[in-house]
Amino acid sequence: MSALGDLLAFQRDTSALGQIAGRLGWDQETMMPEGASAQRAEEMAALESVLHARRSDPRIGEWLAQIETPTDPIAAAHLREITRSYERAVKIPARLAAELARVTSIAQGEWAAARAADDFAAFVPRLSEIVALKREEAAALAEEGSAYDALLQDYEPGASAAELEAMFGALRPRLVALRAAILDAPQPALPELGQFDEAAQLALAQELAQVFGYDLNRGRIDTAVHPFSSGSGADVRITTRTDPADPFNCLYSTLHEVGHAVYEQNVDPDLGLSILGQGASMGVHESQSRLFENQLGRSRAFCSWLHGRMQARFGAALPGGAEDFYRLINQVHPGCIRTEADELHYNLHVLMRFDLERALIAGDLAVADLDGAWNERFASDFGVQVPRSSLGCLQDVHWSVGLFGYFPTYTIGNLYAGCLFAALQQDLPDLDGELAQGNPGPALAWLREKVQCHGAAQEPRALIEAATGMPPSAEPLLAYLEAKFSDLYGL
Amino acid sequence: MSALGDLLAFQRDTSALGQIAGRLGWDQETMMPEGASAQRAEEMAALESVLHARRSDPRIGEWLAQIETPTDPIAAAHLREITRSYERAVKIPARLAAELARVTSIAQGEWAAARAADDFAAFVPRLSEIVALKREEAAALAEEGSAYDALLQDYEPGASAAELEAMFGALRPRLVALRAAILDAPQPALPELGQFDEAAQLALAQELAQVFGYDLNRGRIDTAVHPFSSGSGADVRITTRTDPADPFNCLYSTLHEVGHAVYEQNVDPDLGLSILGQGASMGVHESQSRLFENQLGRSRAFCSWLHGRMQARFGAALPGGAEDFYRLINQVHPGCIRTEADELHYNLHVLMRFDLERALIAGDLAVADLDGAWNERFASDFGVQVPRSSLGCLQDVHWSVGLFGYFPTYTIGNLYAGCLFAALQQDLPDLDGELAQGNPGPALAWLREKVQCHGAAQEPRALIEAATGMPPSAEPLLAYLEAKFSDLYGL
Repeated sequence: MSALGDLLAFQRDTSALGQIAGRLGWDQETMMPEGASAQRAEEMAALESVLHARRSDPRIGEWLAQIETPTDPIAAAHLREITRSYERAVKIPARLAAELARVTSIAQGEWAAARAADDFAAFVPRLSEIVALKREEAAALAEEGSAYDALLQDYEPGASAAELEAMFGALRPRLVALRAAILDAPQPALPELGQFDEAAQLALAQELAQVFGYDLNRGRIDTAVHPFSSGSGADVRITTRTDPADPFNCLYSTLHEVGHAVYEQNVDPDLGLSILGQGASMGVHESQSRLFENQLGRSRAFCSWLHGRMQARFGAALPGGAEDFYRLINQVHPGCIRTEADELHYNLHVLMRFDLERALIAGDLAVADLDGAWNERFASDFGVQVPRSSLGCLQDVHWSVGLFGYFPTYTIGNLYAGCLFAALQQDLPDLDGELAQGNPGPALAWLREKVQCHGAAQEPRALIEAATGMPPSAEPLLAYLEAKFSDLYGL
Repeated sequence: MSALGDLLAFQRDTSALGQIAGRLGWDQETMMPEGASAQRAEEMAALESVLHARRSDPRIGEWLAQIETPTDPIAAAHLREITRSYERAVKIPARLAAELARVTSIAQGEWAAARAADDFAAFVPRLSEIVALKREEAAALAEEGSAYDALLQDYEPGASAAELEAMFGALRPRLVALRAAILDAPQPALPELGQFDEAAQLALAQELAQVFGYDLNRGRIDTAVHPFSSGSGADVRITTRTDPADPFNCLYSTLHEVGHAVYEQNVDPDLGLSILGQGASMGVHESQSRLFENQLGRSRAFCSWLHGRMQARFGAALPGGAEDFYRLINQVHPGCIRTEADELHYNLHVLMRFDLERALIAGDLAVADLDGAWNERFASDFGVQVPRSSLGCLQDVHWSVGLFGYFPTYTIGNLYAGCLFAALQQDLPDLDGELAQGNPGPALAWLREKVQCHGAAQEPRALIEAATGMPPSAEPLLAYLEAKFSDLYGL
């Protein structure tokens, strides 16, 4: 075999082993007996160590050195991504990788305990240790460049904090102004909800998933504490959860995860089990899940159809008409918790995390001062005092497991979703007519062709630019939010 | 670290990866979406190739060469089993291992198709290829020794065909005579069964599993096409199946798998994720599952308790008294299918497979002649003509996936169960009194202490000899079967 053939065959096995790690993660959250967690941690560590050794295998360097730049764009994309992964892996000393794995594994339990006890101070020493290790990792990865940008590459290849700052900077003042105007406006009277049978919620979630193109022959839906999507190619599974008092949590978190899962299912099968056989970045991934959940799923047109389906399944538990339903699921209310935020507040949650984590990585903010800095910023953007740390800087698991550079991808996803939706509306003039019939099919086909089928063959920014015909910016998202919520609140 | 420490740490990761392979196998039979099977085959192949490379890693040879024979018996046992695994792995050329994996993977589907079509001739070419590859593998493993014995070591370390022949030779004539006498005797009138709710079957199966010590905090029960047990240590899962017309299939296959699973759960946790942290052999494993299912589960004493539980759950679907129930689930009837056989016929099924597969591996029987040889032997031992190949030599999957040397471990398990049960009855004079109360606890504690906790630290034969105080033989099983069935059929 040629060096390229050898390299791709080697990478194929690495990708297959990566899929196995994903399947174990799914099992852990859905099926694994409780008493198995310590043993599972060892099994996962053994697999991660195999994966790390493969990603930094010196043969990859030798193959790369032998291969001439290919003319075929897909071969070039394979090489680009394999090179990125290899260069990253060899920069991290094995000792640091092992220490980060060990410390973040211990920290998960400590974070959960600190959150349960509302005791930020108790978590400061461990979080300080994690920040120190991540700064060391960032320095190793960045060499002469920006430490934060180096971390960002793991989730959003090609992005830089400077570029994000520009886009996010355009977003924040107009979002803050819009939320202030909405909260000053007269609030609509909303229907009082009854109780919603949980089995019926799951049945409707499954119906919605199929309406949105999720192929259950290559996936499955289970319940778990947190909704998530897992896997690529022919085995992409999602989870959801139910609450008898709140059917929308189940339905819209299902739609969100279906957005992630359908993206993975729609990647060109020719890219399957390769480094390109998955979504292009966390940001592009989030753009698909947000489009499914918000731009399509929370649109007035689709809500009119969904309202009928809900009435058929739940009857009197859901009083009011389709317009009440639309207002209810698009209600704007400032809350402390990111994962419960509406479309408008969500980005404000993310933007403050982006600023705070950059300060932590730069060394400009001490972990001990994080709680105070969080609460001050929250009061300024949301007009609300954070009552306790579990509703403040202890609410998210991300930092405790070492995910720095991850948060901004949520807003990148929303920005990309804004750009894609504007282009999609241009190309599909009868979108609302189709959605009102419960048919997102034309929109799904557009997303499949423009974004999803390409997997990671194109870099994120280039992919969005090619799909929309313009460079990504905050403007389409802002225009969409301002129009939608001005209409809803009669501004 | 010392060479011993390095070797054990390396083996620990290999064992952890082996557990992952087991979990994927479980997933495939219980949870995996249908469309994922081709991708899963690639994922498994990637993991198997990692495992093969680790088992034959040259560093193992170097570590073994540096280590002086340890005085600690557990350390010595680790070395014994690691040496066995390493020497086996390095004897098999990579080309042969890959070819066997490829051919047996194709053969599974072809076997299923041939069985469905009752067309043995269609399967002859592929099975001939498999036998040729297994003969090549056996020759590589055996070097100067017996080819069949070399294959046997994979499932029953330390066993030899000559020793088995002696034990099995004592078994066959007395079993054939006993079955003839029973079938000539007047047959008892048995109650006509109704229909049994499948959810209630599963609930009773779960109750039985817990009565027999299965820890659901470190396991779980799902339904699958075939009942099986999977995993070691803190994550040991079982499957079962239901048939509304036959609740005993569900209950007794659950008890059987619980025997396997409880064995794994009871291995000393200090041996967890090591090469010793699992059952000692397939034969010892089968002894535990057979004891749970037969000697304990089908005893008159336990049946009197179980009959009450079944009446409580199923009422009129189960007419007759406890003695009728006992006779029903111990009914002797010659049938063509091994997995449906009673305690008495089961070993006759196995013995003929043992003789036939030895002839295939020795080259004394051509695959093309297997069907005829099977039917002739079956007529002689069972007094029944095999009507078609799906009820004859195509019924079991084993040979089509290359499992030669596996069948005899079923009867080794029965022989070991006979020896253990005789010793257990001696030590626990009130066994029947406890079983009649639905309490196998004292018997479970005896098995745990004498057999299960040791894992693979002792070799199978030595383990049974230490537990029972005598060398294994066919006599205790024969005495048990002759006493039980003479009583049942008034011989």
